[in-house]
Amino acid sequence: MRVCLKISYDGTSYHGWQYQEGQETIEGQIQKALHELLGTSVETIGASRTDAGVHALGNVAVFDTNSTIPPEKYSYALNDKLPNDIRILESKSVKDDFNPRFDAKNKTYEYRIYNGEVMIPTKRLYAYHYRGKLDVKSMCVAAGFLEGEHNFKSFSSVHTQAKSFVRTIYSCKIITEGKDVIIRINGNGFLYNMVRIISGTILEVGAKKIIPDDMIKILKKEDRSCAGSTLPPQGLTLMEINYD
Amino acid sequence: MRVCLKISYDGTSYHGWQYQEGQETIEGQIQKALHELLGTSVETIGASRTDAGVHALGNVAVFDTNSTIPPEKYSYALNDKLPNDIRILESKSVKDDFNPRFDAKNKTYEYRIYNGEVMIPTKRLYAYHYRGKLDVKSMCVAAGFLEGEHNFKSFSSVHTQAKSFVRTIYSCKIITEGKDVIIRINGNGFLYNMVRIISGTILEVGAKKIIPDDMIKILKKEDRSCAGSTLPPQGLTLMEINYD
Repeated sequence: MRVCLKISYDGTSYHGWQYQEGQETIEGQIQKALHELLGTSVETIGASRTDAGVHALGNVAVFDTNSTIPPEKYSYALNDKLPNDIRILESKSVKDDFNPRFDAKNKTYEYRIYNGEVMIPTKRLYAYHYRGKLDVKSMCVAAGFLEGEHNFKSFSSVHTQAKSFVRTIYSCKIITEGKDVIIRINGNGFLYNMVRIISGTILEVGAKKIIPDDMIKILKKEDRSCAGSTLPPQGLTLMEINYD
Repeated sequence: MRVCLKISYDGTSYHGWQYQEGQETIEGQIQKALHELLGTSVETIGASRTDAGVHALGNVAVFDTNSTIPPEKYSYALNDKLPNDIRILESKSVKDDFNPRFDAKNKTYEYRIYNGEVMIPTKRLYAYHYRGKLDVKSMCVAAGFLEGEHNFKSFSSVHTQAKSFVRTIYSCKIITEGKDVIIRINGNGFLYNMVRIISGTILEVGAKKIIPDDMIKILKKEDRSCAGSTLPPQGLTLMEINYD
């Protein structure tokens, strides 16, 4: 039986999602908890390999097992064994050929910027601090230019093995909550560092270093060096992944 | 000159506000930073001695100095030396006899309860998890009964040296934000553990263990054992302190 887990984590203490020998990773912790529970080593397939320091409200992973444990019980059983900065929100059985990465229809990420004068300590691990004045209206216009199917090579880390840079962004919105400015982006797939580079570029629009129309030019250049900087990981949260 | 600091902190790693020999405390960190900055040991007077694990958005403290540093520069100078879970939001000069504790007109606290099925890891250090169904309307009614001048002995830790238990609550409101239920309380003063005991009692109303009218009876009893439990510290944040 293939069991699907919906996973939330605080990425602060981990070297990202993906299992790495000798490193604390979220996938490593889940594999360890499954090993303790099932008495055998278990392979996992994750939907999204988040980077060190990036958080998730709803990442997804699957594993195969012959155990008679009812699939919906894995959330409780694994939460008993996992550290409290990783929680299984839900577990259920899925088709044997379900692949959480390739079957994903769309994903939502949020990048949170705290735009106050001094960083609030309880936000420091969950937002990026930018103290300069931000033109939120211009950020909204810039975000809108990214919606649709585009070649996002300018917004991808050069350290990628992607063969195609074409992705579809269904929605890219700016939301304000008090002094937080949130870039919420939903699309059919994301290149390596894409949300953090998009956020860094929209931030440059907010800071009036570039104008909203520059987003169109940057997209057309297909050149990483034209876009803004890669914002740090702690502001980023993988919110949800949707399937059919 | 007496300098007043507005201070925000993440209380997770500290044994509370108050200086204690050999313990990491927020006041201890601030005194250490002042010592480094001014080259001499400096006494501080804090407005509110928050407990271990309790957070603050706006605690207040003062110190006296002969230094020629402009008072509004202390925020920058101290933030350079403080760990990033403690931030000075603002510094300014005040009258020599200003006492941040006794001159406070009112304080606002928030107690945050996360009412989802599984605790979200990024909230675990900033909210209390309660997964049972909550009747928020009844919680609002119960909160309203606390407004006004009352003897709050039932809502005070027995480990208090308070001489009078009479305090005035100007406002006690329940706010919901997604699955968060927040108890926001403003009053002229608070007894030891008062907000955490009030929150534990309002939570019992929400869980239908008691009814809103019981708040009136509990107040009248003036007996700690009649009220609900003291909720854990991480859900509590000192939001602000107001002066004339």
